[in-house]
Amino acid sequence: MSEFGAWVSGNHTNFRVWAPYLQTLKLKLAGRDPIPMERDDRGYFFVKVGGVEDRLYTYLTEDGSEFPDPASRYQPQGVNGPSQVVNTNFDVPGLKTKVDDLIIYELHVGTFSPRGDFQGVVERLDYLTDLGVNAIEIMPVAQFPGKRGWGYDGVYLYAVQESYGGPCGLRDLVVEAHSRGLAVILDVVYNHVGPEGNYLSKFGPYLSNRYVTPWGPTFNYDDRGSDEVRKFILENVRYWLTTFNLDGLRLDAIHGIFDFSPKHILKEIADLSHSLGKFVIAESDLNDPKVITEYGVDAQWVDDFHHAVHAYVTGERNSYYSDFGRLEDIEKAFKDVFVYDGRYSKHREKTHGAPVRGLSPRRFVVYIQNHDQVGNRGKGERLSVLVQRTKYFACAALYILSPFIPMLFMGEEYGETAPFLFFTDYSDPGLAKAVREGRLRDNGQESDPQSEQTFQNSKLTWKVDEEVLSFYKKLISLRKYVDERPKRVLKGDNWILVEMDRIFVVASFGRSTVEVDREGKLLLGINFPEELKRRETIALQEGVGIYSDREIGR
Amino acid sequence: MSEFGAWVSGNHTNFRVWAPYLQTLKLKLAGRDPIPMERDDRGYFFVKVGGVEDRLYTYLTEDGSEFPDPASRYQPQGVNGPSQVVNTNFDVPGLKTKVDDLIIYELHVGTFSPRGDFQGVVERLDYLTDLGVNAIEIMPVAQFPGKRGWGYDGVYLYAVQESYGGPCGLRDLVVEAHSRGLAVILDVVYNHVGPEGNYLSKFGPYLSNRYVTPWGPTFNYDDRGSDEVRKFILENVRYWLTTFNLDGLRLDAIHGIFDFSPKHILKEIADLSHSLGKFVIAESDLNDPKVITEYGVDAQWVDDFHHAVHAYVTGERNSYYSDFGRLEDIEKAFKDVFVYDGRYSKHREKTHGAPVRGLSPRRFVVYIQNHDQVGNRGKGERLSVLVQRTKYFACAALYILSPFIPMLFMGEEYGETAPFLFFTDYSDPGLAKAVREGRLRDNGQESDPQSEQTFQNSKLTWKVDEEVLSFYKKLISLRKYVDERPKRVLKGDNWILVEMDRIFVVASFGRSTVEVDREGKLLLGINFPEELKRRETIALQEGVGIYSDREIGR
Repeated sequence: MSEFGAWVSGNHTNFRVWAPYLQTLKLKLAGRDPIPMERDDRGYFFVKVGGVEDRLYTYLTEDGSEFPDPASRYQPQGVNGPSQVVNTNFDVPGLKTKVDDLIIYELHVGTFSPRGDFQGVVERLDYLTDLGVNAIEIMPVAQFPGKRGWGYDGVYLYAVQESYGGPCGLRDLVVEAHSRGLAVILDVVYNHVGPEGNYLSKFGPYLSNRYVTPWGPTFNYDDRGSDEVRKFILENVRYWLTTFNLDGLRLDAIHGIFDFSPKHILKEIADLSHSLGKFVIAESDLNDPKVITEYGVDAQWVDDFHHAVHAYVTGERNSYYSDFGRLEDIEKAFKDVFVYDGRYSKHREKTHGAPVRGLSPRRFVVYIQNHDQVGNRGKGERLSVLVQRTKYFACAALYILSPFIPMLFMGEEYGETAPFLFFTDYSDPGLAKAVREGRLRDNGQESDPQSEQTFQNSKLTWKVDEEVLSFYKKLISLRKYVDERPKRVLKGDNWILVEMDRIFVVASFGRSTVEVDREGKLLLGINFPEELKRRETIALQEGVGIYSDREIGR
Repeated sequence: MSEFGAWVSGNHTNFRVWAPYLQTLKLKLAGRDPIPMERDDRGYFFVKVGGVEDRLYTYLTEDGSEFPDPASRYQPQGVNGPSQVVNTNFDVPGLKTKVDDLIIYELHVGTFSPRGDFQGVVERLDYLTDLGVNAIEIMPVAQFPGKRGWGYDGVYLYAVQESYGGPCGLRDLVVEAHSRGLAVILDVVYNHVGPEGNYLSKFGPYLSNRYVTPWGPTFNYDDRGSDEVRKFILENVRYWLTTFNLDGLRLDAIHGIFDFSPKHILKEIADLSHSLGKFVIAESDLNDPKVITEYGVDAQWVDDFHHAVHAYVTGERNSYYSDFGRLEDIEKAFKDVFVYDGRYSKHREKTHGAPVRGLSPRRFVVYIQNHDQVGNRGKGERLSVLVQRTKYFACAALYILSPFIPMLFMGEEYGETAPFLFFTDYSDPGLAKAVREGRLRDNGQESDPQSEQTFQNSKLTWKVDEEVLSFYKKLISLRKYVDERPKRVLKGDNWILVEMDRIFVVASFGRSTVEVDREGKLLLGINFPEELKRRETIALQEGVGIYSDREIGR
């Protein structure tokens, strides 16, 4: 049951669409005469029809125009084609997942496997459980234009991308993942909708004319008609979390979700998710703890952690990296989460962020790579091709064994060297041109985003570097010894130490003279001695060591 | 001292302007060669010049363009003319004002008196103290285009409208008001700036390109460069409250102040005002207690109270009045402040507002007329010409003796019948045309806003109806017996009773059968008996009575 779209109930299918701009509307099922729908005073149209499972349909307006269902669950012919009735009365076993324990693996369905669909992910689930992660986070699957794309320009929030395998493909993936104890987090975009195939404004005030985002029109959460728009989004949350029994949602760019209502839509999303026993993670560029404390989101991404590590180890200082680059920034991220927590940012030309105060580090997700940080580079280079292995291992150890929630980006764990570029498959030539030019101008990406080759080049090669994979597996296996909060963070000339109760991590990013006042035996490392003695001063090369003074992990 | 504008210090004048878009800037003083200014790395330009008090000046950019000072304190030739140095080192005695005790009188300087300037207000201050109000709230005086206007399209936030008498005129008004124990509240517009004479975007990112208001561009409170924009606004708050020693500010339409920063600019404005011993009152269309509880504003306007009373007594149901009209709405306003406190509004086509819970009624300002409610009517009719005197008196008694903070609109107290229309004095013909057409289309105002006659017609005639004035004076004199919260609000067929500890008000809006279970002697009334007996049931005409069972006010 849902308030929106077409849902099968017994031998019937219910069609319901919110279209207050229209006075009459007809359901046009393939091979049938148009069926008038009943309108209520809020602008919902409804009709119940027998025996039309799997049938194609559109909505026919007074002036003879036909549009797909704004809440379509399946767009077998893409964003401009008809919708299709799908029986989504799935039975997907659930999983009990604790946010604090997450080790997330971010993947893009289209480039994760050679076949580029949900089945391709299923085939590698054993690999992922063997790796040791306990959750996959899949980049958006809401129907987007064409066959290839990152998914952030989706326009059918309830439809699962047909080129990935549609709703049944997603269901199968979740069933298989859950059977292996792997949680599934879905990336959902509630801050804007894509431009192509977007007919929402034919139906009603779905989109805001008060706020603008750099990515396109945003939803109308607080103006005329917003009760229904909010329902449309909240039902979407419910749809993903119950129909597919997903474990949580990753909310894209919540700094683009503008809502002046007494209860912010993010709070409603979080409350609803919690009531269903699920969680929400937010991508936020606000560096603001209110995302957790006021909106009730379970965890938020920390770009500052990434930038601090990346700028320091690569030496890059362009764009937002200009705000980072000192070892102190990494130290501050460990201590205070946000490097910019009320400080002036030169890059942003404004004071940025606020202190997180007493919040648990488990409310924050960290990474040294993700789809944006790799893919928004003009050449899509992964960290594996930017720094030496010793640095790569040091970075990996620092974040995977950090008190925060770690998130890997697909391929990172075996040292993938193929790029991850920006790719699209728009059919509108004007849009294609604008994206091509924009990516070149703003990101320096010379590969044409529209080219099939750019997409193919971004696929994981699965040329596994066994040394890297083995190191990652061991790191992940040590994750269970990470406490909720670090006891201490120390740094010296080129080194940093993150000390927890049972283990401590020392990373050296060049020749350094490390003084440690804790002893320990090496659990895992590179270029580091087998043992550290209390108050010992040692000269080290670049590398990393994870130590313990107890009999663990050996 | 200020961060912005030209301020005189001893024999010198300091000029400081934030213009990060520019690399060089010169100060052009009348009769002098341009003087290069020094730029700092945040984009502030500064220069100190001796002996130029009262001199005209502009800022000269690289390409030879001349602009007035964005923080000009005086525009003697209007919004497009040069700025003038004014010594604003005023010495204005202060007043100690308690928000809870306010009885506010809203006035528009240009139409309050025949001469239409600050001096015209000064000449009637004795009348106002005699009336019994203790605060005047003056509609915006920040320099707006032309000689006539409501003031909400001001573009020089630090300049006092020249046609009103400029900064010295305002100073004189405050000195005179304070000497009579009258507080002065200034209406300030921080949600948008007017279109004509607005050169802010030549200097820097003063305006947002993320949010839009129905009235024009809004300030950039949370994007690139916003530290300085916030300072520009906060210094403006400080300027009004210290230079003129104003008692408080009335913040226009705060639902148009968009800020996603960790600390909302409204909270900063409230904190700053409080640190100076001053208060802030907000006009808010949000019906959201967070304006008080989160932003720390001292009181907010309640349009719902107005609409409930107005729709009920006039029978009007057009536009937003369609959401009101029942006696229950007035009752609810007395009990819960907001009629729409989480209910669906048909007019707004959305759920509106949130409950105020335990907030004191003294956090809310009520009125039965104000510049908007009168002036946004096409014919600018005051309540005095819309309803019979008995109803007029009943409405007046209800709100002036309500537990809320009452606000009168100039002329209301003596039954003024002249309209208050919308008037402007733009010099840009395109803008003039747009406003003329917009007012006709949206408000049904047939009088040309640009016409001098429309302005003249809106002036108070001062044809005093002594019966009305006398009734108002008595009402205001009884205000001291109003408790912070009503004990009880009761209603019957066409009557409502608001009971406080020492007095109670019974208003009848038609033939009604009133049952009162409290006895009292009439303090003031129309069409009501001298005495009410406990448990008496009496048949009444339209009218109102204020009663007490004690020996007060007689």
